[in-house]
Amino acid sequence: MISFTKEDLNILDKIISSRRDVRGNNFIDKKVSNKKLNIILESALKAPSVGYSQPWAFKIVRSKDEKNKIYKNFKRNYLKSFPKFENRPLYKKLKLEGIKESSINIAVFYKKSNKEVLGQTYMKRSGEYSVVCAIHNMWLTARVMGIGIGWVSIIKPKKVRKILKVSKEYKLIGYLCVGYTKNFLDQPELKKVGWDKKKNLHDCILN
Amino acid sequence: MISFTKEDLNILDKIISSRRDVRGNNFIDKKVSNKKLNIILESALKAPSVGYSQPWAFKIVRSKDEKNKIYKNFKRNYLKSFPKFENRPLYKKLKLEGIKESSINIAVFYKKSNKEVLGQTYMKRSGEYSVVCAIHNMWLTARVMGIGIGWVSIIKPKKVRKILKVSKEYKLIGYLCVGYTKNFLDQPELKKVGWDKKKNLHDCILN
Repeated sequence: MISFTKEDLNILDKIISSRRDVRGNNFIDKKVSNKKLNIILESALKAPSVGYSQPWAFKIVRSKDEKNKIYKNFKRNYLKSFPKFENRPLYKKLKLEGIKESSINIAVFYKKSNKEVLGQTYMKRSGEYSVVCAIHNMWLTARVMGIGIGWVSIIKPKKVRKILKVSKEYKLIGYLCVGYTKNFLDQPELKKVGWDKKKNLHDCILN
Repeated sequence: MISFTKEDLNILDKIISSRRDVRGNNFIDKKVSNKKLNIILESALKAPSVGYSQPWAFKIVRSKDEKNKIYKNFKRNYLKSFPKFENRPLYKKLKLEGIKESSINIAVFYKKSNKEVLGQTYMKRSGEYSVVCAIHNMWLTARVMGIGIGWVSIIKPKKVRKILKVSKEYKLIGYLCVGYTKNFLDQPELKKVGWDKKKNLHDCILN
């Protein structure tokens, strides 16, 4: 049976702690090789999934044309969201995606099963949650290889699906920008700029 | 800036590959200390979250009475699900939870924010997805410490919330059984028993 050391725990903690959501102000113009991309994708396939359903599917986006269309969708929604926030001067300054600056975009989808999935009968969204675990594996694996990932969510999922010509049975869970970076910030950017503070464990425990 | 080696990538892959969903046929009667529990929970707090919203909350379940009530809910739903599956002889043999056998149960909730969350306007579920990333950090961290986690999803989320006396503003995302194990299987149990096969990367890529 595989077992781990205290040093391994330190390494995992270092990976988890230094993983960042990377945006366009930090990606550099350097290609991610297919070999590295495959290592990232293979880590996704080792994620837990409800009833071993493995309901994930990946669309690799490299074309400028597709990236531009998705960027336009982002931009429109970004501008529409603006009035909703109190701290508008800060909102305006934030770079919230890296669609065009990153080497590769990956649209990650959930595919509903045709048959009943073990464990999904009472928690319907557990299939989507499995896809999220896959994304998180990718995020950690990429970080170790010095590759940044940014998750863009200011987009309309159905619109993105249509731009990418993906059929209706797939649901977009995460749109990822993947590429090499200038650096990885020592703290989450939204913490650094004062958008919000880190929560303490004590405040997250329900009595 | 923190950087990693090829050996670190191997260690992460070993952790990701040997993480298992652990059930009652594998937990042993050994307490998880508060110190270890805190290490697991602190790793959750380092997960990515949409708009740095950190929308997670944890209810630690130790009482036999509460565990029994949740087990009853599982059992009822487990029996009701039975007719839905083709392979009923196998379904009957599967041990699908470890509520009573594990040292600690942790109910992990999503708390909706009172204010608009950056990035959540167009992908409403991204808040729930952040909580899933937190759970996955816990799963990996526990594995390195030789502690197993099993995610039980054959339960009714609202019912579990009520049993645990947690208020309506919280939504159950995952119910986790946490404890030491006899071993960690070399492969996912549902793969071993032939419930399903592992997918190849090629079959998960959309053209």
